[in-house]
Amino acid sequence: MQKHTIDHTLRATWQAVAKLYNEEAGKYGATMAVAFTLLNIDKKGTPSTTLGPKMGMEATSLSRTLKKMEEQKLIRREKHQEDGRSVLIFLTDLGIEMRNLSKEKVISFNENVNKNLDAEKIAHFFEVSETILNLIHQRKIFNKN
Amino acid sequence: MQKHTIDHTLRATWQAVAKLYNEEAGKYGATMAVAFTLLNIDKKGTPSTTLGPKMGMEATSLSRTLKKMEEQKLIRREKHQEDGRSVLIFLTDLGIEMRNLSKEKVISFNENVNKNLDAEKIAHFFEVSETILNLIHQRKIFNKN
Repeated sequence: MQKHTIDHTLRATWQAVAKLYNEEAGKYGATMAVAFTLLNIDKKGTPSTTLGPKMGMEATSLSRTLKKMEEQKLIRREKHQEDGRSVLIFLTDLGIEMRNLSKEKVISFNENVNKNLDAEKIAHFFEVSETILNLIHQRKIFNKN
Repeated sequence: MQKHTIDHTLRATWQAVAKLYNEEAGKYGATMAVAFTLLNIDKKGTPSTTLGPKMGMEATSLSRTLKKMEEQKLIRREKHQEDGRSVLIFLTDLGIEMRNLSKEKVISFNENVNKNLDAEKIAHFFEVSETILNLIHQRKIFNKN
């Protein structure tokens, strides 16, 4: 029954999800990267420097996404009141609206998957993912022992 | 125990695997894309036109990868004997060697993950992935019903 390797399945499934999210975001003139960034910006303002690490995104592609989001009036940048060198990112009203929409889509995705599978299987999916992350973290993947 | 959504976990896990594979490939002057392409080229020669769809890779990024692989003497291109317009891609001896190495790495990854988890959990991981792919394929993900 198992036709593919674990890594192949992870890649194929994530790519299909990313394609779906990008298509859905495209209906609103956005991309998955924009939606994902919106979801990571706090209503109280998020320092631009913490966003990249939080999202696991490269600095260059994040700054390109933020520039686009500023042009689309989804965010605005403000100097930090106490620390003039630091910049805070805020959502505009349009940004908040699009953030809520993005959240709905993520919830809809997860609800639909959960509805179609036993809770135990989902729990095992999380456990397998966590084990993979732990093995990578412990550098045990290419270790023969 | 479940801190994240399914889509978030898929993304984080695949990104960690891709990073690991890229680091490992880097030790041999390659990238994950190169290793992945090597694994998809048949010993009897693979038509360049079938490679992209087979790998789920964009034409532009595939052609960039193939150019690099030709420069590194991992592959060579030959006109198809019967159809002069079509081009076949062959592995060089170095390409075959690197293909075998890539295969070893993929096997090592999967063996280590399998060794650390019950077969039933792995089976459920595959089942969850397959269900997600089916829901996406049937366009049922953003459907409220």
